[in-house]
Amino acid sequence: MRILIIGGGGFVGRKLAGRLAELGTLRGAEIAELALADIAAPDALDAPFPVTSHALDIADREAVDAVIAGDWDVIYHLAAVVSAQAEADFVAGMRTNFFGTFNLFEACRGRVHTPVVVYASSVASFSTDVPQPITDWTATTPQTSYGTQKAIGELLLNDYSRRGFIDGRGVRLPTVVVRPGKPNAAASSFFSSIIREPLQGDPAMCPVATDQEVWLSSPRVTVENLVKVAELDGEALGGIRNLSLPGMTITVAAMLDALGEVAGENVLGLVDHERDETIEKIVQGWSSRLETDRAMELGLDRDEDFGRIIRDFMETDMRPAEG
Amino acid sequence: MRILIIGGGGFVGRKLAGRLAELGTLRGAEIAELALADIAAPDALDAPFPVTSHALDIADREAVDAVIAGDWDVIYHLAAVVSAQAEADFVAGMRTNFFGTFNLFEACRGRVHTPVVVYASSVASFSTDVPQPITDWTATTPQTSYGTQKAIGELLLNDYSRRGFIDGRGVRLPTVVVRPGKPNAAASSFFSSIIREPLQGDPAMCPVATDQEVWLSSPRVTVENLVKVAELDGEALGGIRNLSLPGMTITVAAMLDALGEVAGENVLGLVDHERDETIEKIVQGWSSRLETDRAMELGLDRDEDFGRIIRDFMETDMRPAEG
Repeated sequence: MRILIIGGGGFVGRKLAGRLAELGTLRGAEIAELALADIAAPDALDAPFPVTSHALDIADREAVDAVIAGDWDVIYHLAAVVSAQAEADFVAGMRTNFFGTFNLFEACRGRVHTPVVVYASSVASFSTDVPQPITDWTATTPQTSYGTQKAIGELLLNDYSRRGFIDGRGVRLPTVVVRPGKPNAAASSFFSSIIREPLQGDPAMCPVATDQEVWLSSPRVTVENLVKVAELDGEALGGIRNLSLPGMTITVAAMLDALGEVAGENVLGLVDHERDETIEKIVQGWSSRLETDRAMELGLDRDEDFGRIIRDFMETDMRPAEG
Repeated sequence: MRILIIGGGGFVGRKLAGRLAELGTLRGAEIAELALADIAAPDALDAPFPVTSHALDIADREAVDAVIAGDWDVIYHLAAVVSAQAEADFVAGMRTNFFGTFNLFEACRGRVHTPVVVYASSVASFSTDVPQPITDWTATTPQTSYGTQKAIGELLLNDYSRRGFIDGRGVRLPTVVVRPGKPNAAASSFFSSIIREPLQGDPAMCPVATDQEVWLSSPRVTVENLVKVAELDGEALGGIRNLSLPGMTITVAAMLDALGEVAGENVLGLVDHERDETIEKIVQGWSSRLETDRAMELGLDRDEDFGRIIRDFMETDMRPAEG
């Protein structure tokens, strides 16, 4: 079992690599090699199997061909220019999210060996311009360039799978909260900041009204689902290779309530509130209420307790206290 | 009012050009020029305004840029590698339908003048793998490469419109019946052949069971809707620039019954029946039952009488009897 994670330097990619190192197997076979590729070569990882690291710009077709020539059994495609960045820089988003995804699938098409490809799409493929809740059969009507590019990747993945060029599974990730580290250019970044920063003793800014809902999942459950999706028999997905991962619907206010319960009311004073129209417009356009019957029937996991998500973060990802 | 029809050499394109010549105006302005572009330069056309003809391969980015440099007020994008051909030749379909459509929208993005772009998508974007009937909010889950490429064009059109690069309107055309001329490489071609050939005294082959349903519209109504869609205020479409055009659901058996009524039972003897698995599989994957509330609310037209469609064909498009 030879596995490639494109976007292996990102937060979810690193978590997934760590989980694969714990498991040691995937799809019933011992992992013989794990390759991590990202725009900058990812850091090393402790694992019971060899781990290689590759600098890869997926917009560079020849570079993609060279990496895919490794004949991987399972390829995770988690690389993306994130939402607010793709909105601010149209060309950058199209380059990585549109052409990069096409390049990857095309490189696989040229191989004798058909890889399992797990593609990270996003709840941003959906919008609030259609009747809610979103079901497994609702149109993707994205209202951001990021969501558009992700939805296009879904269509490509499905057709390349139907033709047998890849054995693809596209999964629309909820907003993943709590992310460790620093804020990034995702419009959703603050959903993590308002939990992470106060826990670490730092101030945070909430740019939306506290009754704003979000569709989220924890890093732990997201990674577990990425593993499970790779383990599925492709036949189980039929002619529709894309699906929404389970998540939970929660308001910012309920997130902050849970933070107060877990860490004490005093940390809430570190959260300032100042509306940011740009962020607010993007986030309001995302659906927060989804029915994910297909994913549940396929045995995928769901978060149910935001307090547990906060405690998980404190145990596994929180920056150690100084001094 | 300067109008460009890409795919202007095709059947629908020529019909549309003829209708514009009759109307003389579009969007309240007198037509000053009509340009017809296609893979081979289209034939001339009688019109009360200048008509130019251009050979254009939309997969050739520089050629597209050169044509779009004309600063058109309205651009119709009707060019495509059709369904059975795109299924038989994946690369050809991707080249024209995927890159060609991208090239066109990209060329518009570079212009100061924002054109109205009417994009012909297809009912093939939908499939029978989801609950029927198809509504305005149903997911596009195409089960052909043609449908995939068309659905990707819809997503691009919407995002390019949202960003103000174009003023786009994507319309999913029903299968257009009765087409004049010869059969083409569309999997739907036989739906016209089984009417057209017997009327012209020629034999025809029906490759599917007679209880097969199809979602169709006449050339007349299709062209009228292409005109109406260009006339709409883009704001009326909101954040979702793509919609299904109205059509009628009819079985092959009912089509043949109508043929017998209009032209006499004896012509039905010219229709042979021999199932073709390839065609059958493609056609069975298309939805035949759609609800098109948005299109109806926007004032678009619908066929209701297949007998009238046959009579229209006999009056306007049928090959003159020999001798």
